[in-house]
Amino acid sequence: MDYQPHPDDIRFVLNAVLGAPARLQALAPFAEIDGDLQAQVLEEAARFVGSAIAPLNRIGDTVGCRFNAGAVTAPPGFPEAYQAFVDGGWPALAAATADGGQGLPAVLEAVLYEWLSAANHGFTMAPGLLHGAYDCLKHHGSDELKARYLSKIATGEWLATMCLTEAHAGSDLGQVRTRAVPQADGSLRVSGSKIFISGGEHDLTPNIVHLVLCRLPDAPAGPKGLSLALVPKQLPDGTRNAVHCDRIEEKMGLHGSPTCAMRFDEATGWLVGEPNRGLAAMFVMMNAARLHVALQGIGLLDAAWQKADAYARERRQMRAPGPQPASRGDEAAYLIAEHPAVRRILDTQRAWIDGGRALAYRTAVMLDVAKHDADPKAQARAQRWCAMVTPVLKAACTQQGFTGASECLQVFGGHGYVREWGIEQVLRDVRVSMIYEGTNEIQAIDLLVRKVLPDGGAAMSAVLIELRDELDASREIDADAQRRLAQLRYLTTSIAMAAHAAPSLPYEVADDYLRVTMLAMLGWAWARIDLAAGSAEGIDGERWARASAAFHRHVLPEFEMRLGMVKRACDAVTAAATAAAHA
Amino acid sequence: MDYQPHPDDIRFVLNAVLGAPARLQALAPFAEIDGDLQAQVLEEAARFVGSAIAPLNRIGDTVGCRFNAGAVTAPPGFPEAYQAFVDGGWPALAAATADGGQGLPAVLEAVLYEWLSAANHGFTMAPGLLHGAYDCLKHHGSDELKARYLSKIATGEWLATMCLTEAHAGSDLGQVRTRAVPQADGSLRVSGSKIFISGGEHDLTPNIVHLVLCRLPDAPAGPKGLSLALVPKQLPDGTRNAVHCDRIEEKMGLHGSPTCAMRFDEATGWLVGEPNRGLAAMFVMMNAARLHVALQGIGLLDAAWQKADAYARERRQMRAPGPQPASRGDEAAYLIAEHPAVRRILDTQRAWIDGGRALAYRTAVMLDVAKHDADPKAQARAQRWCAMVTPVLKAACTQQGFTGASECLQVFGGHGYVREWGIEQVLRDVRVSMIYEGTNEIQAIDLLVRKVLPDGGAAMSAVLIELRDELDASREIDADAQRRLAQLRYLTTSIAMAAHAAPSLPYEVADDYLRVTMLAMLGWAWARIDLAAGSAEGIDGERWARASAAFHRHVLPEFEMRLGMVKRACDAVTAAATAAAHA
Repeated sequence: MDYQPHPDDIRFVLNAVLGAPARLQALAPFAEIDGDLQAQVLEEAARFVGSAIAPLNRIGDTVGCRFNAGAVTAPPGFPEAYQAFVDGGWPALAAATADGGQGLPAVLEAVLYEWLSAANHGFTMAPGLLHGAYDCLKHHGSDELKARYLSKIATGEWLATMCLTEAHAGSDLGQVRTRAVPQADGSLRVSGSKIFISGGEHDLTPNIVHLVLCRLPDAPAGPKGLSLALVPKQLPDGTRNAVHCDRIEEKMGLHGSPTCAMRFDEATGWLVGEPNRGLAAMFVMMNAARLHVALQGIGLLDAAWQKADAYARERRQMRAPGPQPASRGDEAAYLIAEHPAVRRILDTQRAWIDGGRALAYRTAVMLDVAKHDADPKAQARAQRWCAMVTPVLKAACTQQGFTGASECLQVFGGHGYVREWGIEQVLRDVRVSMIYEGTNEIQAIDLLVRKVLPDGGAAMSAVLIELRDELDASREIDADAQRRLAQLRYLTTSIAMAAHAAPSLPYEVADDYLRVTMLAMLGWAWARIDLAAGSAEGIDGERWARASAAFHRHVLPEFEMRLGMVKRACDAVTAAATAAAHA
Repeated sequence: MDYQPHPDDIRFVLNAVLGAPARLQALAPFAEIDGDLQAQVLEEAARFVGSAIAPLNRIGDTVGCRFNAGAVTAPPGFPEAYQAFVDGGWPALAAATADGGQGLPAVLEAVLYEWLSAANHGFTMAPGLLHGAYDCLKHHGSDELKARYLSKIATGEWLATMCLTEAHAGSDLGQVRTRAVPQADGSLRVSGSKIFISGGEHDLTPNIVHLVLCRLPDAPAGPKGLSLALVPKQLPDGTRNAVHCDRIEEKMGLHGSPTCAMRFDEATGWLVGEPNRGLAAMFVMMNAARLHVALQGIGLLDAAWQKADAYARERRQMRAPGPQPASRGDEAAYLIAEHPAVRRILDTQRAWIDGGRALAYRTAVMLDVAKHDADPKAQARAQRWCAMVTPVLKAACTQQGFTGASECLQVFGGHGYVREWGIEQVLRDVRVSMIYEGTNEIQAIDLLVRKVLPDGGAAMSAVLIELRDELDASREIDADAQRRLAQLRYLTTSIAMAAHAAPSLPYEVADDYLRVTMLAMLGWAWARIDLAAGSAEGIDGERWARASAAFHRHVLPEFEMRLGMVKRACDAVTAAATAAAHA
């Protein structure tokens, strides 16, 4: 079975849980975009994804991309599907109307990309990079570059890449060696080799726009000497630029997306942004890109869940335990969906998907608020939310995408391990999301070391208070969630203090801190969902109640565990420092 | 790099931690087999596995097995390697000398198979099924069948299969439909279709001996109507039996092993054991087979660890956090092994491997004791240990094999996702171990519902007291381990009591109970390792100390979490029952 988007589930989270339509419509650019229009866009997107993109998922995996003498062929059907995607205006959903876009809220784009990833992760990699390139060029490109490239990228007529990684420079971009030499005509000659370039070469669009991290002559060593160059595959005069694809990688999965080794041989390019400010130019798109990766985790987990759920409603093995009605006496084997071990897997993964969505969509709304709110304070608050929560979601949702898909595979027994059912493809595909856009370990360090600790935890504390204030302490589930948010604030202070005595401590507890943050925030999400599910009409209450119960029983206990782990690490450091002071 | 067995590590666990050589030599059949000889066998096995089997791992994955018109071709090099394996006497290591075996302890065979799996999981599937078939035939076969097949299987001259699963009957073997009709000459005509038959067809040996779960005419429905038939590929008169391979599965991994769909068309076979007692005949080999799967988890995790460790000692990215000596001022990038996030992954997986080994090898020793001890009480105790601990190890070690291999992959960043480094193959291969020989969910039910609860937890309690008594309460680490064992005993009683009120409760907490049991037992293992490492000579103390620290910091906290989860489930049931009683 192919993945099928369910707009109802999304609408419940966006509308009943988050109140997103009203919040968005309050922003000037979206004044005309009411809840009905938003819902309509999503219905249309669901139809397109389900009918045009999902059916190509299997062939993307089995046939994959082919490399031949520098050229890359996309899997059968991909070029036509991509053209339909462009023709439907989907790449330009959230781009400004002035650039040929539709000017819709980023949150709708986020939902679209969650569905696309769930339906066909390999296909989605191609347009997935457009939005970052668009934002980057829009903010940092010269007028001339924008005139030439911005609308082509906004509409998806030309695809784009991010050329960052080199063989010796992965998480450590400061080691990038690709060189860019300024020419008399204002252009650059770019030379160097890049690896892991998604969509570096393909036959989906006539031109490909590469954004290349490079070094100008005499640039300082390290990350502060990096610049960003725009290097097109095809030059404005129609000739081919000196940009070559040397090979595509054989990977664990994601065969529908070519992962290219690219070589720039004195290729012609142009500077984007200031010299030596290349990383800053790229950071513009960081939060949105990482949020989209988090949504890949959620989407692919939902794809795995759909498969497992369908299988569990069809496969029969053994009778379920416990007393059963006499009327079932003649059934030798029950649906496996009735067995507690299977039920637990399905409900627990549902809890991750729905809770993760609430947090991810809230973050997408905040991206819109940060950009468009008339009140600078509201903008700043939204910006702060995105900075803090994005790395949490990127790491936690992709990890769950992988471990949860593995759980869903388990529902199939031996059938899960064979290709036939497609569940093993999900597991292979989603694994990459834990690595790219900054490994999950890097996200944890980004959160704790770069975001939380520099101000002693003040900004994080403000985010947590914001969440606390949205809960109603008279409800038990809310009060519990508030208690956890308070515990997390206290923990943050403990780390900040202990870090004075042991500067490497934050690096040692960063993963646990990220997890405990995610679980506290999921607690908020499920309190909000629980409230909304109690009053919303036309929803399947039992579906949400089962996931809520699974969240509290099977997911949430990790909160106390991680809290304890970080606490003990802090206490050990503090005790050692005290002992040293008294010695 | 290819996997390389490290006999030193094994010897430390077997000798210093478990005192295995003396325990084994005290058993009559092993009176002549002293520690030196055991060590010698392992050295030789390590050389063979490292030089003849490990180098074929990659080609087993990339070329895999080929199917053509009913015939299956093993990957290049596999037939020669298998012949060398037979010529070296390795299949017959633990088989009785009377059957052409070497009569060595089962624990040496366990180590051999851990290494084989780590080196080349696909290859290992072929001989991996011999031992179960040997035990089964030895215990239940008629003299005639034994004369014809036992030594061929013992020596590996002919390979064997277990034909259990049918398309509609996986975990629920009671639904098996394959029929066996007795003939006048005492043989059976066997008809039916089986799936997921590892090594059902191949070109490694001239004959293949299938053990087929089937139903005699008029057999009762369900598991109590199952019989076991021996059905050879080649009949004694040299003609080909009506056994057909219809296809081999396309799988996520394990491409070196053909997973066959087999069809028996009135094939000739012979009953093994009593009619309708087929499951009992198969249970003979259950503990050994499941232990070997647990060791696959450990072995493949060690294979992943070796790769990650080697990469982390070679790859440089960024400076490590915290104050560094001035002498390193000119190093822009440190080895990633020096970064806390990587160090944590490596040390934590080491903790699982070493602790898992201590428990698995102890179980293998118990297999020998259960078979050979002169004292029936000692035999019974050993049997009890195996019954309780085997499902725990099967589930926990294979799950860790998968999640831990994924952690090790993460050490490689993007390089882990491409085939080049071989780490993604480990992840794909090991995933199957969570499924076969009874899914991990089935193991949890086997443990709690079938083994622990029927006697109210008495046997489990005896196992835990045995472990407690091997610890020295005057050492803090031992006293902590003892406390956890006591907590587990108490928890077991709580479940037994609560289950009266809620018969499905055990099924709901079975997974958590298995985890909490594993963690309590690992606590015992690490207390013993800690003690041994303090006094053993010639070992790298820091290696063991780092893994011990990682175990206590990063692994053990899950004990309290799972304990709490099960407790709360019991309390909820008990509270509901009390409320009902008072209503």
